Amino acid sequence: MFSTEYDVIVVGGGHAGGEAAAAAANMGAHTLLITMSLQNIAQMSCNPAMGGIAKGQIVREIDALGGYSGIVTDETAIQFKMLNKSKGPAMWSPRAQSDRMRFAETWRNMLEQTKNVDFFQDMVKGLLFEGDKIVGVKTSLGIEIKSKTVILTAGTFLNGLIHIGNKTFGGGRAGESASIGITEDLVKVGFESGRMKTGTPPRVDGRSLDYSKMIEQPGDENPEKFSYLSLTKPLEKQRSCYMSYTSLEVHDLLRTGFDRSPMFNGRIQSIGPRYCPSIEDKIDRFATKERHQIFVEPEGWNTVEVYVNGFSTSLPEDVQDKALRKVAGFENVKFFRYGYAIEYDFFPPTQLTHTLETKLIKNLYFAGQINGTTGYEEAAAQGLMAGINAALNVQNRAPFILKRNEAYIGVLIDDLITKGTEEPYRMFTSRAEYRTLLRQDNADLRLTPMAFEIGLASKERMDRVIEKQEKTDLFVKYLIETSVTPKVINPILEENNTAKISQSMKMFKIAARPQLDFHDIQKIPSVANFILENNIDNEIIEQTEVHVKYAGYIEKEKNQADKLNRLENVSIPSNFDYTKVKSLSIEARQKLTKIKPITISQASRISGVSPSDISVLLVYMGR
Amino acid sequence: MFSTEYDVIVVGGGHAGGEAAAAAANMGAHTLLITMSLQNIAQMSCNPAMGGIAKGQIVREIDALGGYSGIVTDETAIQFKMLNKSKGPAMWSPRAQSDRMRFAETWRNMLEQTKNVDFFQDMVKGLLFEGDKIVGVKTSLGIEIKSKTVILTAGTFLNGLIHIGNKTFGGGRAGESASIGITEDLVKVGFESGRMKTGTPPRVDGRSLDYSKMIEQPGDENPEKFSYLSLTKPLEKQRSCYMSYTSLEVHDLLRTGFDRSPMFNGRIQSIGPRYCPSIEDKIDRFATKERHQIFVEPEGWNTVEVYVNGFSTSLPEDVQDKALRKVAGFENVKFFRYGYAIEYDFFPPTQLTHTLETKLIKNLYFAGQINGTTGYEEAAAQGLMAGINAALNVQNRAPFILKRNEAYIGVLIDDLITKGTEEPYRMFTSRAEYRTLLRQDNADLRLTPMAFEIGLASKERMDRVIEKQEKTDLFVKYLIETSVTPKVINPILEENNTAKISQSMKMFKIAARPQLDFHDIQKIPSVANFILENNIDNEIIEQTEVHVKYAGYIEKEKNQADKLNRLENVSIPSNFDYTKVKSLSIEARQKLTKIKPITISQASRISGVSPSDISVLLVYMGR
Ligand SMILES: Cc1cc2nc3c(=O)[nH]c(=O)nc-3n(C[C@H](O)[C@H](O)[C@H](O)COP(=O)(O)OP(=O)(O)OC[C@H]3O[C@@H](n4cnc5c(N)ncnc54)[C@H](O)[C@@H]3O)c2cc1C
Ligand SMILES: Cc1cc2nc3c(=O)[nH]c(=O)nc-3n(C[C@H](O)[C@H](O)[C@H](O)COP(=O)(O)OP(=O)(O)OC[C@H]3O[C@@H](n4cnc5c(N)ncnc54)[C@H](O)[C@@H]3O)c2cc1C
Repeated sequence: MFSTEYDVIVVGGGHAGGEAAAAAANMGAHTLLITMSLQNIAQMSCNPAMGGIAKGQIVREIDALGGYSGIVTDETAIQFKMLNKSKGPAMWSPRAQSDRMRFAETWRNMLEQTKNVDFFQDMVKGLLFEGDKIVGVKTSLGIEIKSKTVILTAGTFLNGLIHIGNKTFGGGRAGESASIGITEDLVKVGFESGRMKTGTPPRVDGRSLDYSKMIEQPGDENPEKFSYLSLTKPLEKQRSCYMSYTSLEVHDLLRTGFDRSPMFNGRIQSIGPRYCPSIEDKIDRFATKERHQIFVEPEGWNTVEVYVNGFSTSLPEDVQDKALRKVAGFENVKFFRYGYAIEYDFFPPTQLTHTLETKLIKNLYFAGQINGTTGYEEAAAQGLMAGINAALNVQNRAPFILKRNEAYIGVLIDDLITKGTEEPYRMFTSRAEYRTLLRQDNADLRLTPMAFEIGLASKERMDRVIEKQEKTDLFVKYLIETSVTPKVINPILEENNTAKISQSMKMFKIAARPQLDFHDIQKIPSVANFILENNIDNEIIEQTEVHVKYAGYIEKEKNQADKLNRLENVSIPSNFDYTKVKSLSIEARQKLTKIKPITISQASRISGVSPSDISVLLVYMGR
Repeated sequence: MFSTEYDVIVVGGGHAGGEAAAAAANMGAHTLLITMSLQNIAQMSCNPAMGGIAKGQIVREIDALGGYSGIVTDETAIQFKMLNKSKGPAMWSPRAQSDRMRFAETWRNMLEQTKNVDFFQDMVKGLLFEGDKIVGVKTSLGIEIKSKTVILTAGTFLNGLIHIGNKTFGGGRAGESASIGITEDLVKVGFESGRMKTGTPPRVDGRSLDYSKMIEQPGDENPEKFSYLSLTKPLEKQRSCYMSYTSLEVHDLLRTGFDRSPMFNGRIQSIGPRYCPSIEDKIDRFATKERHQIFVEPEGWNTVEVYVNGFSTSLPEDVQDKALRKVAGFENVKFFRYGYAIEYDFFPPTQLTHTLETKLIKNLYFAGQINGTTGYEEAAAQGLMAGINAALNVQNRAPFILKRNEAYIGVLIDDLITKGTEEPYRMFTSRAEYRTLLRQDNADLRLTPMAFEIGLASKERMDRVIEKQEKTDLFVKYLIETSVTPKVINPILEENNTAKISQSMKMFKIAARPQLDFHDIQKIPSVANFILENNIDNEIIEQTEVHVKYAGYIEKEKNQADKLNRLENVSIPSNFDYTKVKSLSIEARQKLTKIKPITISQASRISGVSPSDISVLLVYMGR
C-alpha cells in the first residue's frame, strides 16, 4: 500500500490540482495526486477556452512561473485572439479556444512526464489530523495515506448538486459523482463552509446550425501564444467561432420557464457568479435589454459538438429547447446536452494565509474553486501557489508570496484572503491597482527570476528572460542615445500626419509620439540595421515599444507601488493582540482579529478598516 | 425538444452501441444515440486491446461488413500481433493493443462524421410500449423520445454494483454511475433477467516497474492490420508489452484475502467469465499450478499507465498490493487504480430471434453485454447486426442473418439465442464448426458482397473484394494450368528437403507440398514474372497460398456446410405448436416452445433436442 509518507498530497485533478502537483513535484517534493477519475485530469467543465481579459494575464503569469497551463493551452489551441488590442498594452489579454479532449489528454501526459508525481484514482472521503496539523487523507476504499502537507482542490465536487428545471441530481459535474466527507471533516474541526452555484450552457450539434445567419469570429491573423518557452508554436490554422443574438421573443420564451427555474423558485439559494450570469439572470436583471450576444464555439478540431457561450441556464430542458430555437441560426438545433446549474460547498478564503495554508490547521492548503473563485485560470494560479508553498514548507524554506504590484496572482490571493468573497470571485483588470505594470507581455520579466530563484522555473526559461531583458535594454538605450536627421525621418512623420522636425532629434522622443508605431520606426534604415545586427525579434520590439510609449505611466505606477511597499514592509506580528488596542474601531478590531493581516498594507485593504485605524496600527508598529 | 420520431434509438454508446448506431445510420435510418456520457464513447472498460483468438476474426468480419471497430483499432493501435501464425490459417488471429484515450476519441469522431446519427447525453430510465411494441424511451430528465425501433446496449451498467474486498459501490464502471429503470421496465412486461459479474485488474505506474526482470513481448516484425480498406496503414513503430509470472508466494499472499473476497464469502453470487477468470479464481481452481502469466500492457503511446493483464481481482486492496509486489518486476509497484469486480443485470438471450429482436416486444433489440456476452468484439458484432436489422425492419426489408458457416458472428448469435448462456459468453474458435471457412483472411470475400447488397458496405470495399477474388482466381488458375520443369524447381525442392521431380509438373501440385511456402514458389522466375505483370500483392499471394494448401480441408467443410444448409432450409413456421407433437420428448417440447427455432437445423442445436426429435420434426415439415 502507501507505505511512504508523501511530502505533498494533492486532492483533485482539476486545474488547481494539476498545477499544484506539477509545481510541488518540480520543486522536488514527493507528490501524490489523488483524483476521482484519472481519465478527467484538468477537464474543462464549462467553456473550452483559456484566458480572456485579466485571465489571460494570469495564464501568462502561470507560465512565467513554470506552470503548465500556458503550454497545454498552446498545444491544444484551435483559435487564438489578443483581446483589447486597440487599447493600451495594459489591457491586452490573450485568449485561446482549446480542443477539449486534447486539453485533458495533454495535461495528463505532461503530469505523467513530471518526475516526483505519483497518481492514484480514488475519492478522498476524510482527512487525518493530529492536533492542529493535517497528516494525511483517507479514501473511499478506506486507505489511509500519510503526508507532510495536503492541498485540497475539490472544485465544484463537494456535496455537488446538479439542477435542471425541477430536477436535481447529486454530482460534481454532469455524469460524475459528487464528493462527500471532506466538508464534514473540515466543519468538525472548526472551518466555516458556504454554498455557491455556477452554471453551464447547452452543448449542441454544430451540423444542425445555420452559420450563414451568424457573424463569423475568426482568430487573429497573426496569432500569438501563451507560453514564453519556444517549445510551443503559434497556430498555423484556426477554427472560427460564430456570433448570434437572443431577441425579445427568446426572452419571453425563457420567461415561461421561470416558475420552474431552480434559480427563481427558491430551490437554489446560493450565489452564482455575477459576471458570468445565466441567461435567465441576464434577462431578469437587465429587463430592458433587447438582446444578448451568443457565441458559438467549437469544442475541438474535429468534433461537431459546439458550446453555446452566453446561454448558461438551468431552466427546464423544454424551455431551453424552445427558446434557443428562436435564436438566429439555431432554428433546427439539436441538443447534445442541456445546460445545468450546480451547487457546491466552498470555504470562505479569509480562513487562509497568503501561502493558501489554512490558519486553523497547519500544513493544509486550499486552492481553486473550493476557495470561492470561479474560472480555470484563477484555480490554476492558486494551485500553482499552493503547490510551491507546500513544497517550501516541507523543505523548511521561506514562503513564496506575490505582491499586488508584482502579479495578478498576487492581487487574486490577497483579495481572497483579505476581503473574502460573497459570490464566485473572478479576476478583472479593475481589481489590480498597477495594471500598467502587470502586463501580459512582461509576466516573464516580472516573475521568472523569482521562480528561478526558488528552483521552479528552468534555466532555459531564465536564459530567455535575461536575453529578452538585455536586448530590450539595448534597444531602448540605442533609441535614447541615437539621433535621426530630419531628412530621414520627416517623410515618415509626414506620412503619419505628425509634425516634422527641423533638426536631428533623439529617436526615443520620436518613437514616443502616439501617431507612430514601431512599424514606422523600423523604416529608419539605421534602426532596421540595428535590429538585424542585434538579432532583435518581434517580442523584443514589442517590449521596447511598450517601454518607449508608456514610460511615463510605468514610472508613475512604480512610484506608487514603492510607496505601498513601504507599508507592505511594515509587518504585524502574527500574535498581535488587537483586542488590547482600544483606539481601533470595534469593526476593525473584529475583522483584524479574524483575518490576521501580516502587514499594515494588507490591513489597509480589509473592508471596515479605516485610514485612522491604520494610523493607530502604524504607531503600535513603531512608525 | 425531440419532435421527430426516429427510425432507430440506440441506448448506450459502448462498443455495441457504437456499431449499432453506425450501421443503422449508414443503412439510411435516422438514428439517435443516447448515452450517459458523450465523453466516454466506446470506452475500453478493461483491456486496451482488440482481437485475439476468434475475437480477431470477429473484428475482421465487422470490418468486412462495413463496421467501424477495425478501422478505429488500426488508427489507434500501438502494437499488432498475428497470433497462432505457426498453426494453420484457420487459427491465425489478429490482435492489437490500442491507445485507450485515442480509441474512444477516434470512435467518437467517426460517429460524428456519420450522416444520420444524432447524439444525446442523458440516461434512459424507462421504455415506452404500446401493446406488444416499443415506441420510444424516457430519459432521466423526463424527456420522451419516440422511435420506430430501439436497440438496448447498456453493457455492464444495469443496476451495476462494484466490489473491492468488503466494499461495494453502485456504478456501471469505475467512476461512472449505474443505470436504473430499464431492467425494471423490462421485467414488468415479462422479460426474464439475470445477474452476471466480471472483473478488471489493477492499473499501475509503468515507471515503478523493473522491466529488466520481465520478458519483452514486442509486436510483429511485419505488422498487419484489421481493416480491409486502404484507409488505414500498418504500424511503423510499436510499443512492447512485457511478461512476468506469479509464484507460490504470490498465491499464498492472495489467499490471505479470501475471507474478505466478495467472490468467496458469498457477496457476489453471479457467475463470471470462465475463460477470463480473476487471479483468485485461477489459484483456487488450479491449486496445483505454480505460476500464472502476467502481461504488462501499456495503455497508450505516451501514458505511463499500464494494464496488468492476468491479475483481474476483487480482493481487498491491501491484498492486491501485497501480492502484486511479489511478482518479479513489481517489487516497487505504484497503483493507479485497484482491480475490482462488477455485477450487472443481463437478459438471457434465448429471449431473442436471430435478428436480435426480442420475441416478446416488437421492434426492440438487445445487443452486447446485456445479452450475457463478454468482450468488446462480441458486443460490437451484435451491435452491428442489431443496427442492420433495426434499419431493415424500419425499411420493411428482409432481415439480415448470418449462418454458422458464413461467419463467427453467425455462430455467436445462433449460440446465444439457441443455447442461451449460463456464464458470460465469449467466442472461441472451437465454437465454430467450420473454422477453415471462417478465416480472418477471407472475411471480406465471405461477407462484403452481402453487406454491399443490403447497402452497408461501400462501393470501394466491394471493388477491392472483386479485385482480390479475381486476382486470386487468376493466380490459382495459373498455378493449376502452368507446369514447371525439373531444372527450374529441383534446386528449390532440394533446398527445402523435399523430393525432386523428374519431369515437368503442374505448379499447383508442387505448391501444395507442406515443405514449401510461397516464398519458395516465388523463386520460380515465371511465377515472379506473373506476379509482377499482374500486380499481385501480398494479400493475394497469401490468399492463393491458403487456397492451394488447404484446398482439401476447405472443400470438405464446404460440403458439410452444404448438407447442414439443406436442414437450414427446412424452416419451421413461427406459430408451429409443439405441444401437439406427442412423439417429441417432454424436454424437447418445452425447449422448442420456448426458443421457437426457425429452422430444423437451429432446432437440432438446442441442448435437450435429440436426433430422434429432429426426425419427428422433419416428418412434420413434410420431409
Ligand atoms: C457546470 C459548471 C459550470 C461552470 N461555469 C463556469 C463559468 O461559467 N465560468 C467560469 O469561469 N467557470 C465556470 N466553471 C468553473 C470552472 O470549471 C472551475 O472554476 C474550475 O474548473 C475550477 O478548477 P478546480 O481545479 O478548482 O476544480 P475542478 O476543475 O472542478 O476539479 C476538481 C477535481 O477534483 C476532483 N475531486 C473532487 N473531490 C475529490 C475527492 N474527494 N477526492 C478526489 N478527487 C476529488 C474531481 O474529480 C476533479 O478532478 C463551471 C464549472 C461547472 C462544473
Ligand atoms: C470492470 C470490467 C471488467 C471487464 N473485464 C472484461 C474481461 O476481462 N474480458 C472481456 O472480454 N471483457 C471484459 N469486460 C467487458 C467489456 O468491457 C464489455 O464486454 C464491452 O465493453 C461490452 O460492450 P457493450 O457495448 O455491450 O457495453 P459497454 O461497453 O459497457 O457500454 C455500455 C454503454 O451504455 C451506456 N449506458 C448504460 N446504460 C445506459 C442508459 N440507461 N442510458 C444511456 N446510456 C446507458 C454506458 O454509459 C456505456 O456507454 C469488462 C467490463 C468491465 C466494466
